[in-house]
Amino acid sequence: MFPFPYGHIRQGSSAMPIVTVQQGPRSVELKRELVKQITDAFVDAYKIPAETVQVWIQEVPTDSWGAAGKLIADK
Amino acid sequence: MFPFPYGHIRQGSSAMPIVTVQQGPRSVELKRELVKQITDAFVDAYKIPAETVQVWIQEVPTDSWGAAGKLIADK
Amino acid sequence: MFPFPYGHIRQGSSAMPIVTVQQGPRSVELKRELVKQITDAFVDAYKIPAETVQVWIQEVPTDSWGAAGKLIADK
Amino acid sequence: MFPFPYGHIRQGSSAMPIVTVQQGPRSVELKRELVKQITDAFVDAYKIPAETVQVWIQEVPTDSWGAAGKLIADK
Amino acid sequence: MFPFPYGHIRQGSSAMPIVTVQQGPRSVELKRELVKQITDAFVDAYKIPAETVQVWIQEVPTDSWGAAGKLIADK
Amino acid sequence: MFPFPYGHIRQGSSAMPIVTVQQGPRSVELKRELVKQITDAFVDAYKIPAETVQVWIQEVPTDSWGAAGKLIADK
Repeated sequence: MFPFPYGHIRQGSSAMPIVTVQQGPRSVELKRELVKQITDAFVDAYKIPAETVQVWIQEVPTDSWGAAGKLIADK
Repeated sequence: MFPFPYGHIRQGSSAMPIVTVQQGPRSVELKRELVKQITDAFVDAYKIPAETVQVWIQEVPTDSWGAAGKLIADK
Repeated sequence: MFPFPYGHIRQGSSAMPIVTVQQGPRSVELKRELVKQITDAFVDAYKIPAETVQVWIQEVPTDSWGAAGKLIADK
Repeated sequence: MFPFPYGHIRQGSSAMPIVTVQQGPRSVELKRELVKQITDAFVDAYKIPAETVQVWIQEVPTDSWGAAGKLIADK
Repeated sequence: MFPFPYGHIRQGSSAMPIVTVQQGPRSVELKRELVKQITDAFVDAYKIPAETVQVWIQEVPTDSWGAAGKLIADK
Repeated sequence: MFPFPYGHIRQGSSAMPIVTVQQGPRSVELKRELVKQITDAFVDAYKIPAETVQVWIQEVPTDSWGAAGKLIADK
């Protein structure tokens, strides 16, 4: 459980962006840093509160993702 | 293999919605109930047959998803 | 601008689901009803506050979406 | 409204794939050909009926999509 | 590690499509064939280099995905 | 047309992330800044080249997106 500090927020209609990242597997440390930095990107670029930003990381194993017609696992 | 009798289907152009849910892990019982109720929402709101609705639940572990710049796992 | 009534919410780690709907174009009235009913589906099935649920409708024109190998616009 | 005769369907658990394409704008002729060929790809690779495959093309304007840190519209 | 042969590519603004497939679990052999054939579909339909196409397969277990209001696992 | 400077890149299997942003409409200037800053977030957090990052912004009008059971357009 955690406190959810959305009280007192007044939002314009374009706030509350949802970010979905498709990527290969990464460590928790890297994902922690990425979520922090992507959120900062919205705070800086859009001037919206960090509390309005959600980041979802979809980790896809290398045998389920490909480029140039080949699975990454086969490269 | 299985028989798939779609040959005689006449489709309205707005039918066959696809629903994707991004969420943290939940029990099968809860997901079963959610799929049923989301499908009912389309039947009621859009007056389309339940058979035309697909619901896909993308469960994301708490170390791969964050809000307010922090992983849910760290909150 | 609108008040955003998230104050006092205490969330479990699986709350805050994001729903994305892919569908053909619909009227505002129908989308209004759908967003209400999908949100109710989460409140009923998961026992989470309506304020934690976001619904995003991606409307796709019938010349950009197909089934059975054919554009819906051509059916 | 339209009849939707899915009542007697027996589905294999892996059938009914949903394909979402994110791309820049293309002509209807090109999208028609793409939907046909992606559907054929599933028929050939997975041996499933074309009727079970849905393809959704999300066209994104060049000022809403970027690579290497720059909008495509600026390149 | 693998070489990434994007050198010398000149891209139009509509190139670099991203394909996301939502499906039930499949074997690596089937996914390998699918990625190859979807990529070929873009090469044939859009006349773009295979190197510009990415395919991401989101495999969803049968207890997290439903049609007609029921989980596939329950059918 | 633009040059695509992917030559000489050697990628680990987790590189080439795809970012999809769901948001309300924003100006080109804001989107330009966001794409730059999200890309920088990956460069900093994951130590991968900016050239490997793609950002797709799905702008959704306020009558097609809701929170707390209501369309943003109605708030």
